[in-house]
Amino acid sequence: MEQFDLVIRGGTVATAADVMQADVGIKDEAVVALGRGLAPGAREIDATGRLVLPGGVDPHAHIEQLAASGMMNADTFETATTSAAFGGTTTVISFAAQHVGMNLRKVVDDYHACAERGAVVDYAFHMILADPTEETLARDVPPLVKAGHSSLKVFMTYDRLKVDDIQLLDVLSAARDNGAFVAVHAENHGMITWMSKRLLKGGNNAPKFHAIAHPRAAEAEAITRLVACAALVDQPIMVFHVSTAEGAAVIRRARGDGLKVFGETCTQYLTLSKHDMDKPGIDGAKWMCSPPLREKSDHDALWQALALGDLQLISSDHAPYRFDKSGKLASGDSPNFKQIANGMPGVQARLPIVFNEMVSRGRFDVTRFVEWTSTGPAKIYGLYPKKGTIAIGTDADIAIWDPDKEVTFGDADVKDGAGYTAYAGRTVKGWPVTVLRRGAVIVDGGALSAKPGSGKFLPREAGPAAKPLGRPSPEFDPRTNFNARLD
Amino acid sequence: MEQFDLVIRGGTVATAADVMQADVGIKDEAVVALGRGLAPGAREIDATGRLVLPGGVDPHAHIEQLAASGMMNADTFETATTSAAFGGTTTVISFAAQHVGMNLRKVVDDYHACAERGAVVDYAFHMILADPTEETLARDVPPLVKAGHSSLKVFMTYDRLKVDDIQLLDVLSAARDNGAFVAVHAENHGMITWMSKRLLKGGNNAPKFHAIAHPRAAEAEAITRLVACAALVDQPIMVFHVSTAEGAAVIRRARGDGLKVFGETCTQYLTLSKHDMDKPGIDGAKWMCSPPLREKSDHDALWQALALGDLQLISSDHAPYRFDKSGKLASGDSPNFKQIANGMPGVQARLPIVFNEMVSRGRFDVTRFVEWTSTGPAKIYGLYPKKGTIAIGTDADIAIWDPDKEVTFGDADVKDGAGYTAYAGRTVKGWPVTVLRRGAVIVDGGALSAKPGSGKFLPREAGPAAKPLGRPSPEFDPRTNFNARLD
Amino acid sequence: MEQFDLVIRGGTVATAADVMQADVGIKDEAVVALGRGLAPGAREIDATGRLVLPGGVDPHAHIEQLAASGMMNADTFETATTSAAFGGTTTVISFAAQHVGMNLRKVVDDYHACAERGAVVDYAFHMILADPTEETLARDVPPLVKAGHSSLKVFMTYDRLKVDDIQLLDVLSAARDNGAFVAVHAENHGMITWMSKRLLKGGNNAPKFHAIAHPRAAEAEAITRLVACAALVDQPIMVFHVSTAEGAAVIRRARGDGLKVFGETCTQYLTLSKHDMDKPGIDGAKWMCSPPLREKSDHDALWQALALGDLQLISSDHAPYRFDKSGKLASGDSPNFKQIANGMPGVQARLPIVFNEMVSRGRFDVTRFVEWTSTGPAKIYGLYPKKGTIAIGTDADIAIWDPDKEVTFGDADVKDGAGYTAYAGRTVKGWPVTVLRRGAVIVDGGALSAKPGSGKFLPREAGPAAKPLGRPSPEFDPRTNFNARLD
Amino acid sequence: MEQFDLVIRGGTVATAADVMQADVGIKDEAVVALGRGLAPGAREIDATGRLVLPGGVDPHAHIEQLAASGMMNADTFETATTSAAFGGTTTVISFAAQHVGMNLRKVVDDYHACAERGAVVDYAFHMILADPTEETLARDVPPLVKAGHSSLKVFMTYDRLKVDDIQLLDVLSAARDNGAFVAVHAENHGMITWMSKRLLKGGNNAPKFHAIAHPRAAEAEAITRLVACAALVDQPIMVFHVSTAEGAAVIRRARGDGLKVFGETCTQYLTLSKHDMDKPGIDGAKWMCSPPLREKSDHDALWQALALGDLQLISSDHAPYRFDKSGKLASGDSPNFKQIANGMPGVQARLPIVFNEMVSRGRFDVTRFVEWTSTGPAKIYGLYPKKGTIAIGTDADIAIWDPDKEVTFGDADVKDGAGYTAYAGRTVKGWPVTVLRRGAVIVDGGALSAKPGSGKFLPREAGPAAKPLGRPSPEFDPRTNFNARLD
Repeated sequence: MEQFDLVIRGGTVATAADVMQADVGIKDEAVVALGRGLAPGAREIDATGRLVLPGGVDPHAHIEQLAASGMMNADTFETATTSAAFGGTTTVISFAAQHVGMNLRKVVDDYHACAERGAVVDYAFHMILADPTEETLARDVPPLVKAGHSSLKVFMTYDRLKVDDIQLLDVLSAARDNGAFVAVHAENHGMITWMSKRLLKGGNNAPKFHAIAHPRAAEAEAITRLVACAALVDQPIMVFHVSTAEGAAVIRRARGDGLKVFGETCTQYLTLSKHDMDKPGIDGAKWMCSPPLREKSDHDALWQALALGDLQLISSDHAPYRFDKSGKLASGDSPNFKQIANGMPGVQARLPIVFNEMVSRGRFDVTRFVEWTSTGPAKIYGLYPKKGTIAIGTDADIAIWDPDKEVTFGDADVKDGAGYTAYAGRTVKGWPVTVLRRGAVIVDGGALSAKPGSGKFLPREAGPAAKPLGRPSPEFDPRTNFNARLD
Repeated sequence: MEQFDLVIRGGTVATAADVMQADVGIKDEAVVALGRGLAPGAREIDATGRLVLPGGVDPHAHIEQLAASGMMNADTFETATTSAAFGGTTTVISFAAQHVGMNLRKVVDDYHACAERGAVVDYAFHMILADPTEETLARDVPPLVKAGHSSLKVFMTYDRLKVDDIQLLDVLSAARDNGAFVAVHAENHGMITWMSKRLLKGGNNAPKFHAIAHPRAAEAEAITRLVACAALVDQPIMVFHVSTAEGAAVIRRARGDGLKVFGETCTQYLTLSKHDMDKPGIDGAKWMCSPPLREKSDHDALWQALALGDLQLISSDHAPYRFDKSGKLASGDSPNFKQIANGMPGVQARLPIVFNEMVSRGRFDVTRFVEWTSTGPAKIYGLYPKKGTIAIGTDADIAIWDPDKEVTFGDADVKDGAGYTAYAGRTVKGWPVTVLRRGAVIVDGGALSAKPGSGKFLPREAGPAAKPLGRPSPEFDPRTNFNARLD
Repeated sequence: MEQFDLVIRGGTVATAADVMQADVGIKDEAVVALGRGLAPGAREIDATGRLVLPGGVDPHAHIEQLAASGMMNADTFETATTSAAFGGTTTVISFAAQHVGMNLRKVVDDYHACAERGAVVDYAFHMILADPTEETLARDVPPLVKAGHSSLKVFMTYDRLKVDDIQLLDVLSAARDNGAFVAVHAENHGMITWMSKRLLKGGNNAPKFHAIAHPRAAEAEAITRLVACAALVDQPIMVFHVSTAEGAAVIRRARGDGLKVFGETCTQYLTLSKHDMDKPGIDGAKWMCSPPLREKSDHDALWQALALGDLQLISSDHAPYRFDKSGKLASGDSPNFKQIANGMPGVQARLPIVFNEMVSRGRFDVTRFVEWTSTGPAKIYGLYPKKGTIAIGTDADIAIWDPDKEVTFGDADVKDGAGYTAYAGRTVKGWPVTVLRRGAVIVDGGALSAKPGSGKFLPREAGPAAKPLGRPSPEFDPRTNFNARLD
Repeated sequence: MEQFDLVIRGGTVATAADVMQADVGIKDEAVVALGRGLAPGAREIDATGRLVLPGGVDPHAHIEQLAASGMMNADTFETATTSAAFGGTTTVISFAAQHVGMNLRKVVDDYHACAERGAVVDYAFHMILADPTEETLARDVPPLVKAGHSSLKVFMTYDRLKVDDIQLLDVLSAARDNGAFVAVHAENHGMITWMSKRLLKGGNNAPKFHAIAHPRAAEAEAITRLVACAALVDQPIMVFHVSTAEGAAVIRRARGDGLKVFGETCTQYLTLSKHDMDKPGIDGAKWMCSPPLREKSDHDALWQALALGDLQLISSDHAPYRFDKSGKLASGDSPNFKQIANGMPGVQARLPIVFNEMVSRGRFDVTRFVEWTSTGPAKIYGLYPKKGTIAIGTDADIAIWDPDKEVTFGDADVKDGAGYTAYAGRTVKGWPVTVLRRGAVIVDGGALSAKPGSGKFLPREAGPAAKPLGRPSPEFDPRTNFNARLD
């Protein structure tokens, strides 16, 4: 064996299965050795007393994305991925968002251009379909999936983005035909619209009413409907940002019925609550996201859903808007809650916040942390084994954590474009002090050392999660052009 | 006591609770005495060896109704109610069907006019809302409910009739405000539309494909969504024509959760199956109704749901179309299944078919027959105690059954306007040989003796079924104009 | 029609289905007419403003019964049935209790003798089997069932009474062979024994610890096991005195699975709680029964279980012990909770307490009161149609209620032998002011006018509830002597 | 780094999380390096084209164990562990089986002596408690748990071994006090006894009736009861050898309720069925085990339960009896099914059979195979990280598999003492061709090279699985000596 480019020495390495004392030998951007007393590398990092973890994989981040309102969000790929890197995340999946009337291939090209210009960590795209015409599905989706964009996303709510049940079935069916995965924002649009109208009519304008405008039942209902549609065409799905105990319970039942239904929750649904929106004036707008923050009792329910395997990963749903006219306050200084952009930044905070809850507080061991924030997303979305673990041959994407370092979140430390953090004032124990991307240190000593555009696109084939059960419906077989039989 | 106008002597009287040997004394249109050896009446009917049952209450019959397609169905009030009377049914609830753009008060007036002209049994109306504008809900519904139209109906499917979730919530909320009940045709419109398009694209045109075009999951899904919406505004609901085991299971769960959800099934879902549609050519069109006929295994599931109390009544969903250009074949001689009017006649066949299944075959006792076909619907829809039982003071609406008489159904015996019966060739045991409406014999010896227009309108206050739980939502209180609080 | 012996005139008659203004004509101990303006009777009772209800049927009362401890309970048939009559109950089913080693036929003869001597209302027996030897089951049970003792009872707990699972299966199987019904005290004996020992070891002796000694889970567990055993041999069962929400939920699930499982709850589980046992000294012993009183939140759950049909009736589980050395304090003045006889009186209080909760408080209408306290038990236990309703031909067992009369319970008014009531100080609205047994007034103006021994034994065939499903097990057919097959 | 003792070169290494191309460097019995192109070792094994997997951990094997009947099973530690080694298993947990009246410490000493004499792989013991007296629990269990025997096992059935519910609670409570885990054979003893008696009375003697004598419901019932008892005292449990879909469903529900319930299934329940017992004469006895083999449809249900995480591991439940007078035929040549020892050999066949089903047939990937047969059991039973994975610092227990090698099972190849295999004639693809224990090759080229007694005892602290929830019961707190409160 030739000399290592780098050895991370003396740390505690963890994967989704194992925890071990081991040095990590890196060469040509990859992990090539794990061992005790590895030969010296060209460069060495002393990781004594540190945890050596796979870099985080954040599979749900809105970056440099045009919102339905026509507003651009607060991040460029440079700011967002810098922020990711500071938080220990070395891979992100963001979105190529088609709006109504847009050509999907053009959309994907545009997002590629942005990412190539700015990304400092590696990345991939989910393709948002807001206009799943036959042209989009039959002409554009097949080559784009083949080109490595193996996951589609649809919204069941939002005025200008939502698909109806017919379109949903069209997308699910097209995904099945092309071997793609489907992720869904599942909330009942009617309930939300009806509640919002009633609330505003009653003069309930403050940000906190956003939580009431999105009834808990709107989530469980939409997931139930989504599961029924997915089962009809035998297409695996990922339910994005599950926020309620009831929503997680629907997924548990579906999985118990043998369906391929996966679920994600996000940092904020595990650690914040609707009461965070209850601030004087419109300050609560900073904590507005969709689905909204829920009850504190949901935290336990969602941790349990993760522990039981009903949910498989924790993402950030990073969706940054500045708290000024360019973002949250675009409709003026006294907007009602329907006039405020939904979303909060989180790609940077995700890992430290979750590490603190899981590992520092002793709720779960570090293997679970790795599984839900790195290995799980990598496997489910087809990035594994290149990403998501520390094993021989994987990309050397590594975050070295000081498990004892205490840090208090503050708006000033935010590297993304939003200018604030939802966790300001919160102190966590455990911090990713050094971050490597493909063997290169990109963050260390609180400084970034990666160039914009040095992040690479990751074409992905859909992973095993996306493979249909192959089970024909009792009433028709989606594989045989609906050559239906009555028996 | 003055002399009885009529005594029905020597029969076996049954109510929803009791079976007894008793004479029935009638005076001034009402039952005034039950007893052994009642004094002679001005008229006497010998009911020895006969069952003396309350006249049937059919709460779901489309009469003289304009379909969404613009086609009038095959019945006038005269033909439909004559048919009802021959089948032992003495009360019907039909529909005043608003289409988009119609003034609801005008609609109700028009149906009143038709019924006054033709009805030979007593009747009431559910108001179908296809266009629940604020005008309809705020201006028209309140006085109409006060005038005795205490139940609203909406469709979750059918292109020109369906309401979306926002409209559904509007209707549920308006019903709650006005103390009305809400009945719903619950099927997922998107699934049906999507499946139909796929089936037709594959050349699957025959009537039998109607069954596949309405997936079983479309029913369970829509009921689940309906229950969620109803729970949100705390409004009791009736799920019309439950056809699948899964649909009944959703209702069972909702009731177990303490919600006021009621369910109906129909004669055809208990006794026919999708295989009845599998006929040469387009003959299967006669058995097309919505939801479609299902599996034979659903029969047992639906009987069990009735036995457990999950479903509370059996209606006909009478919806007659002739098998000619005026009806089923309006689109020509070779229509595809989407071009054929949905519905089958059944107001006449309901009681004999159900009696045969329940009583003659020994599946249930006669008290259950009375409960599910007469007392139950009368109580749930606010017609009780005038209608739905034989007790002192009730209207003397009575069907005298010969439990041993065997009759084979044939198209020639049909009294409604459809010209055929879905049960042709089926032999039943048990037949309503004499039928009284408010003390007057209207059917006897196979002949009708009631004049068109002699049936009366029955204004109804909503019964206890329609009373909300009064339980505020955990997140908002619908009673206080959404004066929402976070805790 | 000859003259009536008695006419109850001007009241409101209710059955399980109907409420009507009607006079009741009685002749030869039976109801022979219902009507308005009935001809005068030899005797007349003015019931204007009163409710005329079927006499109560209490299917669960321990009378003149030897406890497992060897102690006789506080009632003779005279005191107990007098107490029943004062409370509006005209039929009781008590127990013929076999202990280990006793000949069942002798046991039944002995209880017959006691009842013939003292009963003032009509009665039947459940046969308790504490020693289901082959002799008992094969020799004694068949003729006794034929003689009208069509229900068996077993205990799953109590040291000297309980049957183990093998014996339980023997009894269930023997019941099936003989067409009998089986009622069960279902609590897990091990949990109770283990908890009791632990509690006493920790010095937790007071009556209130009885509630903790019988864990809630002990009920749900035992019902689950019982249902599994009953399903194995396809034998219908009645679960006695369901006291917890969880226990009711087990029954709901079993019924949803299509099993013939019935459930009873009792007055005390609907209206008292474990906190009633939390009294100074040993006063709480008066409220000790098994299962113990539970949480207040269980009240709602049990009412809902009744409303949903999961439970079908409300009994008293009358089990009277004096609060002195002859009863509760037989082990001295400072017994620990295990040394105190379980049970409380209730045959008198049942109907007024339940009427007050259901009707006066508006929780349910009077037909449900009649159903759960009279018609339901009569039908399930094979006493119907002789008992349990007011219909032509039934025994004229009638309680005339003053719905407005307010009465405060006090120990002094108790007619049974216990000398106290668990409801002392509680004021109810609605009272059975006049009670008739087979047409004869037995209670009126607060005085009894029936002679000891005037009550009659009611031989019963098992009702439809006890009929097996006839469904062979997937693995063996109990009907064919276990001629088992593998497929 | 000094020279490796051994390098396994060029293979594909798999853990429960990862699959990688890597050489494995071993020194001083442990894995010390993973990498590409590792420096030469003192010894080298070429693993090109091979899978390099952690040695199997079989946590359920009866070895040299005295049966309740007084019969010794067919294995010594030498034969059983040799058989394990040939099957790729390098760690076994067998039993120290107390019978009634035995001193537990003496029992453990005796089994230690046997194992020290014969074992060729490493081992630990579960302590079977058939006589959980206060002496056993208070005097013997604490020091034995401290000495590394951190798991107790009880039987809910078998005449001379079973504990009743009181004893079960005693054991669960003692386990909680001592930080031990509890594994349980959960079948309802009453159902089995009752069915057996009935079957034998009907002359149904053949081995195949064993399947019917153990009703499926006996398993689900016992697990339900066990879960209730465990929840009462807040003690985590392992349900041994789950054999039915219904049993797995009970565990799924319990876990969904937040309880610490774990489940195991065995090779035979995933691959054999009750039809295997349906052989001429008494040949079916070879396939008799308890619980019995079930339906083929259970295979899918159990695989799904594993996939969902409801069950966590696959053991062998190795329980060998020769098919002669020393074993299965101890009661003569024509025993009825109750006279035949229950159990079948399986420690050798487990891994190849399961590998073939999971990996070769493509049902699951190799990481899941490692998880369920090695990492999972090691973690749950406190053997991890010494055993159960290939990571830096773990014992070098490694099985090198040829994934393409096809082998047909035959009785002649069996290394254990039973003399037959339940899989004779079955061909599998994938075979552990070389097996290492702590770095030493113990099986290669079909030959054993380990000395009897070279296996080592593995003292274990209970793993995280055994840690109670710490949740006090709603009714009492087991941590505070039952200082019960009513609120």
